[in-house]
Amino acid sequence: MPYWVWQTEFKIVKQQPEHDFDDAFRAQFTQLIKWRRDVRRFRPEPVDPKIIDDILDITQSSPSVGLSEPWRFVPVKSDDARAQVMASFKHCNGHALAKLSGEDAKLYAQLKLEGLSEAPVQFAVFSDHASSKGKGLGQQTMPEMLDYSVVIAVHTFWLAARAHGVGVGWVSILDPQEVAKAVDAPADWSLVAYLCVGWPVEDHLDPELERAGWEQSNRPTLNSAQ
Amino acid sequence: MPYWVWQTEFKIVKQQPEHDFDDAFRAQFTQLIKWRRDVRRFRPEPVDPKIIDDILDITQSSPSVGLSEPWRFVPVKSDDARAQVMASFKHCNGHALAKLSGEDAKLYAQLKLEGLSEAPVQFAVFSDHASSKGKGLGQQTMPEMLDYSVVIAVHTFWLAARAHGVGVGWVSILDPQEVAKAVDAPADWSLVAYLCVGWPVEDHLDPELERAGWEQSNRPTLNSAQ
Repeated sequence: MPYWVWQTEFKIVKQQPEHDFDDAFRAQFTQLIKWRRDVRRFRPEPVDPKIIDDILDITQSSPSVGLSEPWRFVPVKSDDARAQVMASFKHCNGHALAKLSGEDAKLYAQLKLEGLSEAPVQFAVFSDHASSKGKGLGQQTMPEMLDYSVVIAVHTFWLAARAHGVGVGWVSILDPQEVAKAVDAPADWSLVAYLCVGWPVEDHLDPELERAGWEQSNRPTLNSAQ
Repeated sequence: MPYWVWQTEFKIVKQQPEHDFDDAFRAQFTQLIKWRRDVRRFRPEPVDPKIIDDILDITQSSPSVGLSEPWRFVPVKSDDARAQVMASFKHCNGHALAKLSGEDAKLYAQLKLEGLSEAPVQFAVFSDHASSKGKGLGQQTMPEMLDYSVVIAVHTFWLAARAHGVGVGWVSILDPQEVAKAVDAPADWSLVAYLCVGWPVEDHLDPELERAGWEQSNRPTLNSAQ
């Protein structure tokens, strides 16, 4: 999709795509949205760092309130940090299970909710509350917009990964303070997401929790998606 | 992108895309991310409701914590409701301006931050805190995951719209309570976003706030994006 960027000294004169997105692209984009899944089962092979760099590059073009770009993607590599994250998951998940009873408890105990021990690439993603970038624009009545900007960056990362066939799992059954401590994050960074990244064991259209019988999606049926 | 879904009575036997996304798709997807902008200047022509329906259909395939799908997109059509939203913007924006001084105040006063009076289609987007869908899975230690699921749905909407050439502007300089009142939202719905939707006056690669000199993006340069 070629486009022109002609610049004079002071302003951009012309900046318009030569052609716009067509039906074929829209059909593929719809497939991307539908085949993006929360992945918890990863193959052990590493992911080429060039692919991760490409995904992070695209992520940097995400929107943010006031152009604040508050996302901080911290790779979690050390065994020690990963062990702390796993320990946090285990006790948080134990508490979550203890709040359930009957069939829900039985089913919950069988769910696979994370790929922390298998995923070759992992990121803790923070929102930087100390940055003045954007000068507070758009955050005065809805300060949550800063964290929302990070959420959207995570979604961009997720989609860009899936376009490469790379799977992403977002783990939220964690104590944000414990994860921040595990990666030694600055005090003003607030955890938004913990991501497991790697090659998925399998691609599938139906959400993991639907397969397991936990909840049904309201999304359009598979037939109408075809 | 064809794929098979073969179902026996009890389980899906095979569900794998026939082929995966290729370089050509990834290049176009990257263009979609880069050309998605926050639009504040709309042409007055209506948007075909079929396009809006298509965008909302794709949005329904967004991820959500525990398959909670808590997003509620409320079309804002009446003159009265739109006038209330505009009034909320005006007084919130006045407060925001009053907090600035010097050059920042001068520049802020000149910024066009919304297309509320022009956008033919508008949505107030809420997070439904009363729904038990998803049975709380993934929300125990990070309850903000429910609202984050709505944020991602808004981003899906934004990208699907741009794939059609339709522009979206996210207005956050609003009092969430006033917007909820304007559309008579249930008490348990929390405002996440207010969206202006329509045909943009112009497409451009550089963020609106960068053009206006408010803030610079850290994104890869235009040249490296080509």
